[in-house]
Amino acid sequence: MITVAVIGCGYWGPNLIRNFVQFPGVRMKTAVDLNLERLRHIAQLYPGVHTTTQADDVFQDPEIDAIMIATPVTTHHPLARKGLMAGKHILVEKPMAASTAEAQELVQLATDRDLVLMAGHTFLYTAAVNKIKELISSGELGHIYYISTTRVNLGLFQEDINVVWDLAPHDISILNYVLGSEPETVAAQGQAYIQSDIEDVAFLHLTYPGDIIAHTHVSWLNPDKIRRITVVGSKKMLVYDDVSTTEKIRVYDKGVTVQPHYDTFGEFQLSYRFGDIYTPRLDDNEPLKNECQHFVHCIQRGERARSDGHSGLAVVHVIEKACESIRRNGEQLPLRSTGELTKRGAGQ
Amino acid sequence: MITVAVIGCGYWGPNLIRNFVQFPGVRMKTAVDLNLERLRHIAQLYPGVHTTTQADDVFQDPEIDAIMIATPVTTHHPLARKGLMAGKHILVEKPMAASTAEAQELVQLATDRDLVLMAGHTFLYTAAVNKIKELISSGELGHIYYISTTRVNLGLFQEDINVVWDLAPHDISILNYVLGSEPETVAAQGQAYIQSDIEDVAFLHLTYPGDIIAHTHVSWLNPDKIRRITVVGSKKMLVYDDVSTTEKIRVYDKGVTVQPHYDTFGEFQLSYRFGDIYTPRLDDNEPLKNECQHFVHCIQRGERARSDGHSGLAVVHVIEKACESIRRNGEQLPLRSTGELTKRGAGQ
Amino acid sequence: MITVAVIGCGYWGPNLIRNFVQFPGVRMKTAVDLNLERLRHIAQLYPGVHTTTQADDVFQDPEIDAIMIATPVTTHHPLARKGLMAGKHILVEKPMAASTAEAQELVQLATDRDLVLMAGHTFLYTAAVNKIKELISSGELGHIYYISTTRVNLGLFQEDINVVWDLAPHDISILNYVLGSEPETVAAQGQAYIQSDIEDVAFLHLTYPGDIIAHTHVSWLNPDKIRRITVVGSKKMLVYDDVSTTEKIRVYDKGVTVQPHYDTFGEFQLSYRFGDIYTPRLDDNEPLKNECQHFVHCIQRGERARSDGHSGLAVVHVIEKACESIRRNGEQLPLRSTGELTKRGAGQ
Amino acid sequence: MITVAVIGCGYWGPNLIRNFVQFPGVRMKTAVDLNLERLRHIAQLYPGVHTTTQADDVFQDPEIDAIMIATPVTTHHPLARKGLMAGKHILVEKPMAASTAEAQELVQLATDRDLVLMAGHTFLYTAAVNKIKELISSGELGHIYYISTTRVNLGLFQEDINVVWDLAPHDISILNYVLGSEPETVAAQGQAYIQSDIEDVAFLHLTYPGDIIAHTHVSWLNPDKIRRITVVGSKKMLVYDDVSTTEKIRVYDKGVTVQPHYDTFGEFQLSYRFGDIYTPRLDDNEPLKNECQHFVHCIQRGERARSDGHSGLAVVHVIEKACESIRRNGEQLPLRSTGELTKRGAGQ
Repeated sequence: MITVAVIGCGYWGPNLIRNFVQFPGVRMKTAVDLNLERLRHIAQLYPGVHTTTQADDVFQDPEIDAIMIATPVTTHHPLARKGLMAGKHILVEKPMAASTAEAQELVQLATDRDLVLMAGHTFLYTAAVNKIKELISSGELGHIYYISTTRVNLGLFQEDINVVWDLAPHDISILNYVLGSEPETVAAQGQAYIQSDIEDVAFLHLTYPGDIIAHTHVSWLNPDKIRRITVVGSKKMLVYDDVSTTEKIRVYDKGVTVQPHYDTFGEFQLSYRFGDIYTPRLDDNEPLKNECQHFVHCIQRGERARSDGHSGLAVVHVIEKACESIRRNGEQLPLRSTGELTKRGAGQ
Repeated sequence: MITVAVIGCGYWGPNLIRNFVQFPGVRMKTAVDLNLERLRHIAQLYPGVHTTTQADDVFQDPEIDAIMIATPVTTHHPLARKGLMAGKHILVEKPMAASTAEAQELVQLATDRDLVLMAGHTFLYTAAVNKIKELISSGELGHIYYISTTRVNLGLFQEDINVVWDLAPHDISILNYVLGSEPETVAAQGQAYIQSDIEDVAFLHLTYPGDIIAHTHVSWLNPDKIRRITVVGSKKMLVYDDVSTTEKIRVYDKGVTVQPHYDTFGEFQLSYRFGDIYTPRLDDNEPLKNECQHFVHCIQRGERARSDGHSGLAVVHVIEKACESIRRNGEQLPLRSTGELTKRGAGQ
Repeated sequence: MITVAVIGCGYWGPNLIRNFVQFPGVRMKTAVDLNLERLRHIAQLYPGVHTTTQADDVFQDPEIDAIMIATPVTTHHPLARKGLMAGKHILVEKPMAASTAEAQELVQLATDRDLVLMAGHTFLYTAAVNKIKELISSGELGHIYYISTTRVNLGLFQEDINVVWDLAPHDISILNYVLGSEPETVAAQGQAYIQSDIEDVAFLHLTYPGDIIAHTHVSWLNPDKIRRITVVGSKKMLVYDDVSTTEKIRVYDKGVTVQPHYDTFGEFQLSYRFGDIYTPRLDDNEPLKNECQHFVHCIQRGERARSDGHSGLAVVHVIEKACESIRRNGEQLPLRSTGELTKRGAGQ
Repeated sequence: MITVAVIGCGYWGPNLIRNFVQFPGVRMKTAVDLNLERLRHIAQLYPGVHTTTQADDVFQDPEIDAIMIATPVTTHHPLARKGLMAGKHILVEKPMAASTAEAQELVQLATDRDLVLMAGHTFLYTAAVNKIKELISSGELGHIYYISTTRVNLGLFQEDINVVWDLAPHDISILNYVLGSEPETVAAQGQAYIQSDIEDVAFLHLTYPGDIIAHTHVSWLNPDKIRRITVVGSKKMLVYDDVSTTEKIRVYDKGVTVQPHYDTFGEFQLSYRFGDIYTPRLDDNEPLKNECQHFVHCIQRGERARSDGHSGLAVVHVIEKACESIRRNGEQLPLRSTGELTKRGAGQ
């Protein structure tokens, strides 16, 4: 039996609680939030869960094995740090910390204490992203040329972090995971329209080993919600549309033919052609359920998580540098690998 | 009665011929191509059209008032130059020339000789683009924040020009037209995957007066065909999907609400909200027909064309600088206005 | 404080429990199911809820004011009957009963005892269906000509009832509600492919007062999931696509123009035209939450429910007669109004 | 060299002319229309084509081998009859005639004179419909259960024929072709809303040998244009969406799983599942070009056309009986096979 607590019952925390309440072998013991109304809501839904406004209650509770942190980004590091110091396994929402240095310290602490540190990169626990990884790894797409991602919608503005910190961790974590590597450079442009100094639109340009480029568009200022990743390989191409309920992944065969001459407007419209398209069936659970189960599994088996501290650190580092590039007007900046970043003394 | 000739009967020329054959008050006299098979095809379709492999035949023909040039880009300048020198009105396919200097010379010649010089920026003659211009000009969208454009598909690779020269002229001409201004800087990234040194994927980042940014993604290496322009304003937003046959333009009211807390995965999926959406009816003719009629109209009335030489020059200048930025690894470069570019002696 | 119980914790019941657990002023006291595993699951999720395999426990519990019945269709009548006899308010899943006679008896009992009897026609509690009703009632669509509905998907085969009993209650309840009337005749065709004698595909043809026709296609044997209702009026038309997450309702202005002649394939493709399209914003809660709140509200105020017993009876009657028509090879059959059906002695 | 004429230069005729002008080995000699303006338009486009208002000119012209008839339906029979009597091969637009008796006579005449008689069922010449036929014939879809078709749009109202005569010939010809059989019964419902006595909405219910049912919805009164055929087989299912430009055919594997219980609204939304989906690449020419080439081919080789007179007759017979069923309030009527209909003396 593993006993867990959740800190933060706002936007995301209740989903963590809902999942952990249902897991066999897990006791969802304590929920923490500063807001009493949120705590009352949780208590009504789950009478068996203890609620408190004091995070220290869970750090000091010897029964608690693991803590999930779903609070504002700036509090990730101090809370995760306290938890690790208290010997708790930690699942912290993305981005794992507010700076490379913070993330480095958390990784160091978890390594030193042999604790599970996991970043909440939920997309790594979806059937779709794992299908993409499989299609790339197996060589079915051929050599990867480039990946472009679009993650835009209207609203859900954050007040404490910009759109890069808010949305790009999804894309970076997916890119690193499916490519099995980390970017070497980043260049980014962004603009703050609604709130001063908080970018709501940004474009990231990443280079990965092997001449692979990745381009990411994130925005809180877009009329329709788009969650789209296009992977272009030398053999096949793939579109991952996360908004679609039934056809998230589509794989396109090559098969271009160009109609060299035409005499009418109609033939012109027909002149772009495609090969076969294949939509694999995906057996989707709720990704968060998979993620939470994986966290429990890693604690029980002492294994490293798919989205472990290193992976959380790598994402934080790219985001930090992307924001620096925005301030430098799009200058291309080199990135350090997690190998370098986690060497003893790297953070100092 | 206006008498016209078409040079180039390959990809686009037959559509020009088809339109001009049908216009009242226009005599479609001569078609020129180096390829005899193409000429035979034209002769069979339009027995009344004279065909020749000699472009000089049309330059020297005193009956011919106007010439449409639909040949490879590198020949645009020499052919248009000869035509203007011979006193002919010129409609030249986009991009108008292969360099800023070439385009400057054509503008100068047309101005000096009081001839119509028009660039074939067909999209400026669509109902959709004119609706966008109207919605921006009338203030219905509010202050414009940013515009992002995507023009990607698989294939139709060019061998003489890269994807920026091939596809971006559409976006730049549309942006300049609907915003009523010209970009001040450009930064661009691109990569050549299929043919060495010919970029098949590129991203352009433009800044326009008034803190407006525009981002353009062009590619020949994308599994599905996307022709999409998103305009984000302070009051409303707009998506122009040129691939849609019945709903090219959609205008989105603001109306964001954020659901602050939720307890289930389902509520999470519902938590992005939108305002009303409005799809104006567009009465679309074939855009090329509108363009050709406009060319004839400008000749008859001595008016400047919507896509006149200045507009063609502005586009060529942006493209040229974008390609320079790609070579300089994404460096942001300043742009000269057409005002500067067309000052006497500007080209030297 | 209202105290409630749920009978049936299989497919739908847990959603009822989840909602009632969260309502202020409501005590979700008892959950009933014959399956012990289901009961254990409920007990784990909601430790405060008492579980039992004995439905009589709730009928005999004087604390319980209201009962929600989410069991197989054939048990609706006996359970609802017992509940009404015991003086409980009843919310019963759709279809309310397995025959007109059964439904008549339930209506009679509720009327005699002055109890709330409500059928679980969830769609009547969606923002989309209420928007349709509003657009029809206000005259914005003009005179209604016809409504066609499609409710098809693959799977979720029922073993005890055919596709008409399973899916068509949604359509009939929506049609009756938005039109504010009841059909006068029904003709239906159906076929049983997968299970013998249990139709998995059916087509219903209904006539409503005022020359309005409604056509309904229901199927468990369709490759993609379609939930679509098209309302055609003399002024405007409307499409309700329940599968869409962001654009459930689209209102189409008239504005047809026919292009009388054309010379190319391209013009042919452009020759169907439409007027403006308008997508109203809908503020959607979970419909079941609305339904449950409405049930509580009607108990508290002593009001008739939107989907009261009469409405449940009307739906059951149409379904029963549709199935009879299928057996009679599509013969058009007259329907009785709920007025007639609820006259004293009507059921005998 | 085959010499051809076109009678009718309105809606469809110019497309026939455009195709025949371009075919090698074909001389497009004469175009006939009563409307002088249409003739002038044709003469301007194709100066080599002779124009006349007198259909007798082509019947009496010994040079003319074949005639295409693209006139109003009521004139199909008299014109085709005259043409056959004059020894000309005939391609007549769909529906081939205005009654079974008329169609019978044309088939008889063509048989007696050994002439090609072809009905303009253009869809039989599309890559999509032939792919469907191939998938059914090869057994890939398994045993066919049912086919439903929807062919609806707004406008293009005809004044001389109802929507069944106008649109359903497409569906019937496709159904007969892909199933390789003819329907045994028809029942139909329809309603006339805009023009009195001319149905603008109709539903047809057909039974084919082997317990296959087909259901067809045709309408001129629908807000959006739908051209959709769903084929449900015991192994796979298929959707043919003719409005889609790039994915006309989609083949769905079986792979249903039912999620037996769920606790949240989100899991509910995920509970319909599908197998893999496959979109075969289709190499689409303009279908009319294929049709016209097939006509020429059949004349040259003396072969029977894919959409020969028998196929045109079968379609006309179904349409005629469907309209009779509408008048009889949906009564199911037996159909005669073309075998019976073309027996000597069958028409009398």
